Amino acid sequence: MDDDDLRRGKPSCHKAFDEATAILAGDALQTLAFEVLSDPDWVGRSPASRLKMVFALSKASGSLGLAGGQVLDLNLTSQNPTLETLAAMHERKTGALIEASVLMGGLCATDESEILGRLRNYARPLGLAFQVIDDVLDGTADTETLGKPAGADQERGQPTFLSVLGEAPARQYAQYLIDQAISALDGFELDATLLIALAHFTLARSR
Amino acid sequence: MDDDDLRRGKPSCHKAFDEATAILAGDALQTLAFEVLSDPDWVGRSPASRLKMVFALSKASGSLGLAGGQVLDLNLTSQNPTLETLAAMHERKTGALIEASVLMGGLCATDESEILGRLRNYARPLGLAFQVIDDVLDGTADTETLGKPAGADQERGQPTFLSVLGEAPARQYAQYLIDQAISALDGFELDATLLIALAHFTLARSR
Repeated sequence: MDDDDLRRGKPSCHKAFDEATAILAGDALQTLAFEVLSDPDWVGRSPASRLKMVFALSKASGSLGLAGGQVLDLNLTSQNPTLETLAAMHERKTGALIEASVLMGGLCATDESEILGRLRNYARPLGLAFQVIDDVLDGTADTETLGKPAGADQERGQPTFLSVLGEAPARQYAQYLIDQAISALDGFELDATLLIALAHFTLARSR
Repeated sequence: MDDDDLRRGKPSCHKAFDEATAILAGDALQTLAFEVLSDPDWVGRSPASRLKMVFALSKASGSLGLAGGQVLDLNLTSQNPTLETLAAMHERKTGALIEASVLMGGLCATDESEILGRLRNYARPLGLAFQVIDDVLDGTADTETLGKPAGADQERGQPTFLSVLGEAPARQYAQYLIDQAISALDGFELDATLLIALAHFTLARSR
């Protein structure tokens, strides 16, 4: 198997089946998310709140989110982009989806824009920090610990936060982003314990 | 250019750009549909009605609709499937999306289940008839008229309503489906003129 073939220690979908099946599985799962959010049997939140979740997820998945970020990734020809270019790409990919996940969690509880705004400001740097640490682990941990092939980015010649910054500065950058995330919760009117723990875990994880 | 390279006389996306870009454009456009339906600036219909549109579109696009139909298509190894197998596959592909399009149009006007039920019963055979005629035209019209390569199905060895039934029975089958579609509108309480014209056009079109 080549570099992209493992996820959590198991063959990835395109390897276990084939590429066409994997793409269609992705299409079906993406649309399933919208089906779950709009399912008439789910009555826990108002239609208006659920429509906000649909909007958050669609923005995060589309041309200004995941799909557009992947296009930027494909067109990233420079082996040595600036930190800004790399961050702008990852803010659309991992970043936008983590932001949408946190925001949709918030929308399950409330429609208060003060709370939702803080959650966004927490999630945005958190998502980027997640990717920075992901890059560091890919270049410094072993395959068994990761559950996916270590060193895959470097083998593909893909620029990462590790290759652009080096390990110590990359970890410092992640720390800076996590500090930003946590400070967005200063004076948060709800219990932020778990959100803060999640932010610390994002830095400390080893896989 | 090979067989799949033209749509409405122009190069298809995967040929004008490349396959990865075409797949990502499809991902972005699919999610854009959900973004449009959930856009907070669109206030023409209630959140409850718009959530029903999201549900209709997600069902039609997912594992029981377009994506699942495409998997059936990929796995259709027999050159000579039964009419039922072929119809079941196309009901999920073209059929489900045409049904969702008609239903969403209905939902823009009303939430009355009597009307929406009739629209579904109109749209389901209409969608299948569209595909039957599509297959007939692919095998009998020329490329210039079609705006996409004629004979592409046959060249790929793909079973179609034309190859399974032959031209005259395929056209009769389409006529039967269109009769079904129009009879679903018997006693329709709204003006059905355009819907009936659309059904007739589906049979009569030459491209």
